[in-house]
Amino acid sequence: MLPKGFKVGGICSGLSKKEEKKDLAIFISDVPSSAAGVFTQNVAKAAPVLVDIKRLKTGDKFSGVIANSGCANACTGVKGLEDAEYICSVGENIFELNSGSLLCASTGVIGQYLNISKDAFPEKVKLLRDNVGASLKNEEEAVLAVMTTDTFIKKLEKEVVFKKGKIKIWGCVKGAGMIHPSLRGLHATMLSFILTDAAIESSTLQEILENSADKSFNCVSIDGDTSTNDTVIALANGQSATGKLSKEDLTIFIKAFEELTLELAKSVAKDGEGATKFIEIEIKNAETKKDARLIAATIATSPLFKTAMFGSDANWGRIIAAAGRAGVSFELNKVNIYIGSIHTFKNGFALNFSEEDAKKSLSEKEIKVIVDLSIGNESSKYYTCDFSYGYIRINGDYRS
Amino acid sequence: MLPKGFKVGGICSGLSKKEEKKDLAIFISDVPSSAAGVFTQNVAKAAPVLVDIKRLKTGDKFSGVIANSGCANACTGVKGLEDAEYICSVGENIFELNSGSLLCASTGVIGQYLNISKDAFPEKVKLLRDNVGASLKNEEEAVLAVMTTDTFIKKLEKEVVFKKGKIKIWGCVKGAGMIHPSLRGLHATMLSFILTDAAIESSTLQEILENSADKSFNCVSIDGDTSTNDTVIALANGQSATGKLSKEDLTIFIKAFEELTLELAKSVAKDGEGATKFIEIEIKNAETKKDARLIAATIATSPLFKTAMFGSDANWGRIIAAAGRAGVSFELNKVNIYIGSIHTFKNGFALNFSEEDAKKSLSEKEIKVIVDLSIGNESSKYYTCDFSYGYIRINGDYRS
Repeated sequence: MLPKGFKVGGICSGLSKKEEKKDLAIFISDVPSSAAGVFTQNVAKAAPVLVDIKRLKTGDKFSGVIANSGCANACTGVKGLEDAEYICSVGENIFELNSGSLLCASTGVIGQYLNISKDAFPEKVKLLRDNVGASLKNEEEAVLAVMTTDTFIKKLEKEVVFKKGKIKIWGCVKGAGMIHPSLRGLHATMLSFILTDAAIESSTLQEILENSADKSFNCVSIDGDTSTNDTVIALANGQSATGKLSKEDLTIFIKAFEELTLELAKSVAKDGEGATKFIEIEIKNAETKKDARLIAATIATSPLFKTAMFGSDANWGRIIAAAGRAGVSFELNKVNIYIGSIHTFKNGFALNFSEEDAKKSLSEKEIKVIVDLSIGNESSKYYTCDFSYGYIRINGDYRS
Repeated sequence: MLPKGFKVGGICSGLSKKEEKKDLAIFISDVPSSAAGVFTQNVAKAAPVLVDIKRLKTGDKFSGVIANSGCANACTGVKGLEDAEYICSVGENIFELNSGSLLCASTGVIGQYLNISKDAFPEKVKLLRDNVGASLKNEEEAVLAVMTTDTFIKKLEKEVVFKKGKIKIWGCVKGAGMIHPSLRGLHATMLSFILTDAAIESSTLQEILENSADKSFNCVSIDGDTSTNDTVIALANGQSATGKLSKEDLTIFIKAFEELTLELAKSVAKDGEGATKFIEIEIKNAETKKDARLIAATIATSPLFKTAMFGSDANWGRIIAAAGRAGVSFELNKVNIYIGSIHTFKNGFALNFSEEDAKKSLSEKEIKVIVDLSIGNESSKYYTCDFSYGYIRINGDYRS
């Protein structure tokens, strides 16, 4: 169930040019909300990203997000910006919201204009207005409408109970390819919308979102590629009975918020294009957090590592080779590597292990890889998936 | 034909554990030669790399290189170093060379020990001794013996005629996967041996090799992965009649040397694991050479770009997305993108082009991509291949 005072919906508008594919969604609050956003750092930022950044800079309270799939509205110049502004203004008119109070997001093919005509589009948004609500069906339709190559609905909710009442946090995410987020500026065609009825100022919400994104979406890579459209928007409408949170309660809220974003981020890796396995990579005992993360990201984006995982091959040589090219110095003779349940490499030496056991362990749907550097106290986790024939199939013929 | 005074050969020694696969090669000069080497910068340097670096630091004249395929002798600790030294010393004994005058190189699976026994191995090297020569057959056998997933023999020769005589440069290269060289310390299981009868001091040869590697092998990526074993060794034995080259003649020699390394490097991309297409990426009119190269390398390692090329899809959106995440600032509205014969993106806008023409152009075996940033005068080229089902097949089950 959605947090208090939110409504969502998704319809088929024809924007994706795919008949019967839901492709236009809205996520709105009954009352003006605090808002926060993190966006792609790609130089080629899509029009909706540029519009949102501008709106968040100048406005304070927002009503929601209107989002479409099928067309990224990226690399579309001035017309793209006008189209994004137009979509927002039609939404604001038809949903009777304050001017400038909608944010927007797009995902899909780069370089195409949005298929909107001034005659037909307002009618589509009216249809959307007639199909918003707070039911489970509405939630699913909204999330479906922003999905592209995703294979399952990724949404999640958390409830935190305080003395004066409860706070709900609801989040959804779409994204399966061009996924390598780096929020505070993200990277990846990843869209995530997080709704909460907590009473939080925009500046605090922005801080919470940036910190949590850095520990969640920023630790996911499907293909190392970074999108022009990545967007995570959080809205807090203050409709919960709790009122302003005490410092202590805020800490509890942040914990729940971070758990939600981490689970959403993991679900992106689980639904990676062509993925047959979810992989968690943990670098332990590095000298610095940055080192740990750099090594984790390098392993997570290594095609050789990812194809080995697809092949259920405990090929730790590819892990050490990737770690070794991460640009971080470490001592080979202190390194230990665990793949699944198998200890493969100990203090610089290959261990004998049963290939049969390894194959069995790596045939699981979730695989944990640990690289223990034993030279410090810092650690970092990164999430990815394997690289399969499916990835080639999906991307060898995506646009045409 | 080999340069004057060189002999090479390759045999099946059993080191690769594959029956009938040639896996032990030697490249030697009749007289002690100047030598130069560039090696992987991976933290996890393989034993033969460590041995060569040490030998090149302490010695001046060298007789050749002994190389094996099937086992990388990487992550093998002290025993690995002893094994590499042992291979060199057996070679030196049986070929009656000065102690310390052989270099070595290995390629294959990481983390396994070389399958050498003190009874059997010298016999194998005697067999190698009986099979060296300067014939075309010897050349091919030597190159075959260092190949792993390579699908064709990659060797090349150049001849430069001077007043006093001619100089020959011969080179071979192996490498199809874990290819992303960064020499002056390379990256990639790429081995290349370059033989010349020019009279050049080791220090000059080292400088020539480093510069040429930076413009050739360092501009190739198959998968962005960096090997523990990359090695390029050049030997110059001075047997040409030209004697020491004048400054002017040296410039001519360097030009031929650079042409040879560039062609060898391109042949690596052409034989990339699973490659169906060779792709040249040129970034034009960047502000700095470093910027141009960074963007070129980011595009060349983008799985989304490489799968689009496999699918003959003129998906310039993935090119601009990759360029935009390279960490280089540029102006989108000045960018032009050409894929094959198709101008797809002009000053920030998508151009209409015939999908049929694009498909036809991208179905060629060699594709040229140009990204013109129009903000400076520097350019850079990078070489790669497409990402196909074959890559997944080869690497999803490489080790086992």
